[in-house]
Amino acid sequence: MPKKKEPVPAPGRFAYERLDRIMHEKARLGIMTSLMTRPGGLLFGELKQLCSLTDGNLSRHIDVLHEAGLIEVRKGFEKKRPQTICCLTTLGRHRFLEYLDELERVIHDALPAQAEAREKTKAATGDLSLGWGPA
Amino acid sequence: MPKKKEPVPAPGRFAYERLDRIMHEKARLGIMTSLMTRPGGLLFGELKQLCSLTDGNLSRHIDVLHEAGLIEVRKGFEKKRPQTICCLTTLGRHRFLEYLDELERVIHDALPAQAEAREKTKAATGDLSLGWGPA
Repeated sequence: MPKKKEPVPAPGRFAYERLDRIMHEKARLGIMTSLMTRPGGLLFGELKQLCSLTDGNLSRHIDVLHEAGLIEVRKGFEKKRPQTICCLTTLGRHRFLEYLDELERVIHDALPAQAEAREKTKAATGDLSLGWGPA
Repeated sequence: MPKKKEPVPAPGRFAYERLDRIMHEKARLGIMTSLMTRPGGLLFGELKQLCSLTDGNLSRHIDVLHEAGLIEVRKGFEKKRPQTICCLTTLGRHRFLEYLDELERVIHDALPAQAEAREKTKAATGDLSLGWGPA
């Protein structure tokens, strides 16, 4: 495939600095998203099921999010049984929106490029099943 | 705020199983996205700048992606100077598209909910600056 010189984007263009590591972790991303859908909060047991997490894992991730000030954890009783309810804080909602904005930038960067890349590969190799083979 | 019972989504609804941990890591996500924009590949030095990574970090992440079969690493010479060029493999492109599809699902889940949540919070508290306060 002939190598064509193209301008290289600005340094740090794909560094995605706003992808906060606390929220980017897969399980925590699921927790934040579920809480986003429920301004009134979700019970520990509901979160566990929605995110397919074990008690131990969910507790650990809740602690991380709570320590970062992103979620509020309220302990109470329902029919004399103890229950834990979690919800996003104002800060958590704000930070998560910033995070989602950066996530949209990733998709926007990758997907139009993909369409263009497919065309280039097709033109260069005449075969869509080949990306870039070994030397 | 009165608690209103709403149907809870299906178990695992927010587990996002297709967010492959190899590609989800922030630096590797940047590497995969940059390579997606360049079907002809990128030089080690270009990737380093685009993703704001050190030599050591970039090498380590390249190894992980290469071992997973997601990228191809070709070593060669340009004007007698050694150079390393990386690009996505066919498998890498395919897996990354699957990953991006799941990422879009996260955004779709979180963002319409956010608009709805904002309305609910407004209706319940009459104040947008408050999310959910401590007991």
